[in-house]
Amino acid sequence: MTLEVYNTLGRRREEFKPLEEGFVRMYVCGPTVYGHAHIGHAKSYVSFDAVVRYLRYLGYRVKYVQNITDVGHLTDNADAGEDKIEKRAAAEHVDPMELAEFYTHSYFEDMDRLNCLRPSISPRATGHIPEQIELVGTLLEKGCAYEVNGSVYFDVAHFKGYGKLSGKKIEDLAAGARVEVHPDKKNPADFALWKKAEKGHILRWRSPWGWGYPGWHLECSVMAMRYLGETIDIHGGGLENAFPHHECEIAQSEAATGKPFVKYWLHNNMVTVDGVKMGKSLGNFITLKDAFKKHHPLAIRYFVLTSHYRSPLDFSESAIEAAEKGLRRIHNAVGAVRSTLAATAREGTSPDTDVAAAAPGTADDTAQKALIEEIDGFCGRFEEAMDEDFNTPQAIGVLSDMVRWTNSILAEGSVGRAVLEKVNDAFNRLGGDVLGIVTKELLGEESAGGLEADLVALLIETRTQLRAAKNFQAADDIRARLWEIGVELKDSPEGTTWKRT
Amino acid sequence: MTLEVYNTLGRRREEFKPLEEGFVRMYVCGPTVYGHAHIGHAKSYVSFDAVVRYLRYLGYRVKYVQNITDVGHLTDNADAGEDKIEKRAAAEHVDPMELAEFYTHSYFEDMDRLNCLRPSISPRATGHIPEQIELVGTLLEKGCAYEVNGSVYFDVAHFKGYGKLSGKKIEDLAAGARVEVHPDKKNPADFALWKKAEKGHILRWRSPWGWGYPGWHLECSVMAMRYLGETIDIHGGGLENAFPHHECEIAQSEAATGKPFVKYWLHNNMVTVDGVKMGKSLGNFITLKDAFKKHHPLAIRYFVLTSHYRSPLDFSESAIEAAEKGLRRIHNAVGAVRSTLAATAREGTSPDTDVAAAAPGTADDTAQKALIEEIDGFCGRFEEAMDEDFNTPQAIGVLSDMVRWTNSILAEGSVGRAVLEKVNDAFNRLGGDVLGIVTKELLGEESAGGLEADLVALLIETRTQLRAAKNFQAADDIRARLWEIGVELKDSPEGTTWKRT
Repeated sequence: MTLEVYNTLGRRREEFKPLEEGFVRMYVCGPTVYGHAHIGHAKSYVSFDAVVRYLRYLGYRVKYVQNITDVGHLTDNADAGEDKIEKRAAAEHVDPMELAEFYTHSYFEDMDRLNCLRPSISPRATGHIPEQIELVGTLLEKGCAYEVNGSVYFDVAHFKGYGKLSGKKIEDLAAGARVEVHPDKKNPADFALWKKAEKGHILRWRSPWGWGYPGWHLECSVMAMRYLGETIDIHGGGLENAFPHHECEIAQSEAATGKPFVKYWLHNNMVTVDGVKMGKSLGNFITLKDAFKKHHPLAIRYFVLTSHYRSPLDFSESAIEAAEKGLRRIHNAVGAVRSTLAATAREGTSPDTDVAAAAPGTADDTAQKALIEEIDGFCGRFEEAMDEDFNTPQAIGVLSDMVRWTNSILAEGSVGRAVLEKVNDAFNRLGGDVLGIVTKELLGEESAGGLEADLVALLIETRTQLRAAKNFQAADDIRARLWEIGVELKDSPEGTTWKRT
Repeated sequence: MTLEVYNTLGRRREEFKPLEEGFVRMYVCGPTVYGHAHIGHAKSYVSFDAVVRYLRYLGYRVKYVQNITDVGHLTDNADAGEDKIEKRAAAEHVDPMELAEFYTHSYFEDMDRLNCLRPSISPRATGHIPEQIELVGTLLEKGCAYEVNGSVYFDVAHFKGYGKLSGKKIEDLAAGARVEVHPDKKNPADFALWKKAEKGHILRWRSPWGWGYPGWHLECSVMAMRYLGETIDIHGGGLENAFPHHECEIAQSEAATGKPFVKYWLHNNMVTVDGVKMGKSLGNFITLKDAFKKHHPLAIRYFVLTSHYRSPLDFSESAIEAAEKGLRRIHNAVGAVRSTLAATAREGTSPDTDVAAAAPGTADDTAQKALIEEIDGFCGRFEEAMDEDFNTPQAIGVLSDMVRWTNSILAEGSVGRAVLEKVNDAFNRLGGDVLGIVTKELLGEESAGGLEADLVALLIETRTQLRAAKNFQAADDIRARLWEIGVELKDSPEGTTWKRT
């Protein structure tokens, strides 16, 4: 199997072949840091995190650049309105850069909790003003841009490829322009490369065209090319930014360099809340910090991955609770494997745990080999799923099959150490390295590991012994005291489990 | 009492009066991000964190800017050598900005663990190239700088105040110049504002003087003034940077603006290791990540604060272990207060905890009032210590006195809830808000709070009951199993305590 990705440019699935063997240059549009990240951000950045992780799993070195927009993103897409950062900073009575710093920190904090790997470089738009001015200069020199009253616009009529990503035609855009067209623009589809700073604008820099600031589209072209070269392998972003943002990026970059800007354009779909589109401007967004109060961050990550990145994700309390249960099932199985392995490490190959190395050539040995082949089968199916344009829901399906299989072989007993190690490794690689949902710490359950779990296990054991010795009062006391400190015991024919109350 | 600070400029202690009432503009030289932070960084940034925290405790709004040097810091102080970031990036075969990103993240990770508050703004040198070019232009216009072969140097002969911070004289510097003076320099004390980029230099920008990069001193002047204004209240940094770095900052800034640059210059002293100066170039530095493997980050923070910021700090294993013990004593007392408070909240004013509100006017009431006054006394002495140029060792001394006092009143019993709340608040404000060594989570001890501590406490209780019931086997089993999972019990006449093994 080979990896195939759906390329928005051309609208078809293609075999993935990076420009340079073994090395992937990848850029993803990062957040505008004027508020806390919400579930929509989780959808985008968890999806592309899984892309990066899978590429690395396949052996590629991935240089992953994801920008931070701290200037130039206006409240209106048609080159009008206020700078989002400045507007919010004025409302909060702080320096725009203080605001950007605060929300940049908040963003990474949330992404860390979602177990998203840090990008290789997280460049800031304000950190690349000279390069942006440089690109505007180049476009003016090449006759693809024009200056009016201290602002510079890209002249879409001078770039043949305009519309190739979105499929939009300049004529249709002009005819359909609903908003009042900026009087400085030659064509309604022209877009600002550099905007003159009006009086009172704080985020501004001196340029050959006077004091101003870069247009929003510009930064991505500049930072992608600065760190990844003039042609990059993958450009990711939200579908809602395919037009005009990404279309404009292509126009700027290709008009300047004469080379293709991006080989594969990948777009993630949106998040809806109870069926309605979620958005900052719509006011129905749920911040991650709020979501984390109710749900484990890994459950949210898992929830995102249960939908394909190109499909919409509908957020609802019931859906995320279902996801949390699904993740718990995986964690329970992983925990059971880990603790069985730990027990054998502690006790050697003691017969009472039924974990023993079978003598080669015996019937036992053959059985273990068959089990190991089954694990290889799961890994193969997992890779097949991911090879199909990073089909994470299907990959999670394979993981769930492996969970059921693991539970059944553990229940049957007589699992060899080699099998346990193999399945443990498979969970760590597929669930951990690739999907990022299996971590060292598991969701708090009996099988969770760590000192807390060990302590509760010891209390349960003590209680069981007390009951066996007919000391019911002391056993009940333990149960009651555990309840007081926030641990609930549940007895069942299979034994006693616990959870935090 | 009023706050007094030792001003390196003038070398005397002065009353602290910010330029604007209630508002403090503060800048501290941040790290050059080409390696993991070490104990020397902890000394500097924990010290200034305590400064920021105390100023906020006093009611000031503090705008705290601390830069990230990701370009221009050369391996040699005399404007020669390689860029530290580029050199290390080449060795690691990564993009310089990838390296800077990695170590910037590492730096904040370590600072977070040391419980240093994030600066209001953490500007990057590469993010402020236009402003740096602008300042160089201004200095050239004013005749305080000259261009030679694509580099621009500051002309110290044209700035009268050169040497006012360090007390050095230009003539002496010239006479004592050991290193070969750069042929382009008019005066050995002249320093680079802008350096021509030699072939192969990656971190470079276009300027009116050709491709190049800013001199290291330049960024701090530019970022301090950009975010804090032309005159700031406090500039902090390591004593080793007073000359030439800070001297050059003053020269650049004041020559350009004609205004005083900094009102109060605060310098922290160095860290020695077993008596020898610690430094990256000396190869005897201990990274914080290594130190955290052996010691709790808060113990390192506490250790730093046990020396005055202007005194050297000698790092040794025994010193830090002693510090850890000191911190544990504080945490134990805080934990005891917290759990006594929690117990009264759970049980109401049950007589067996001896926590009751005394009837007004009774002898009991008078006693409680006296205790509350004693707490006020500790707070007053703490503030006196901090008012004396942020004397943290003395402040810690006051905190230790309060610990002893707390232990004794808790041992005596019959402490009113008002007293407990007051002392709890004092620990949280002085030890928490100001010194940052008392946090929600306390060092792992019986008194630590949290589920783990509750579980161990329950096991200890169960064991005690089993022993009382002469069930020694079961009691011993609990002790042995606890040992296995990493918890050691210690029996003494006062009861059983525990620690992690």
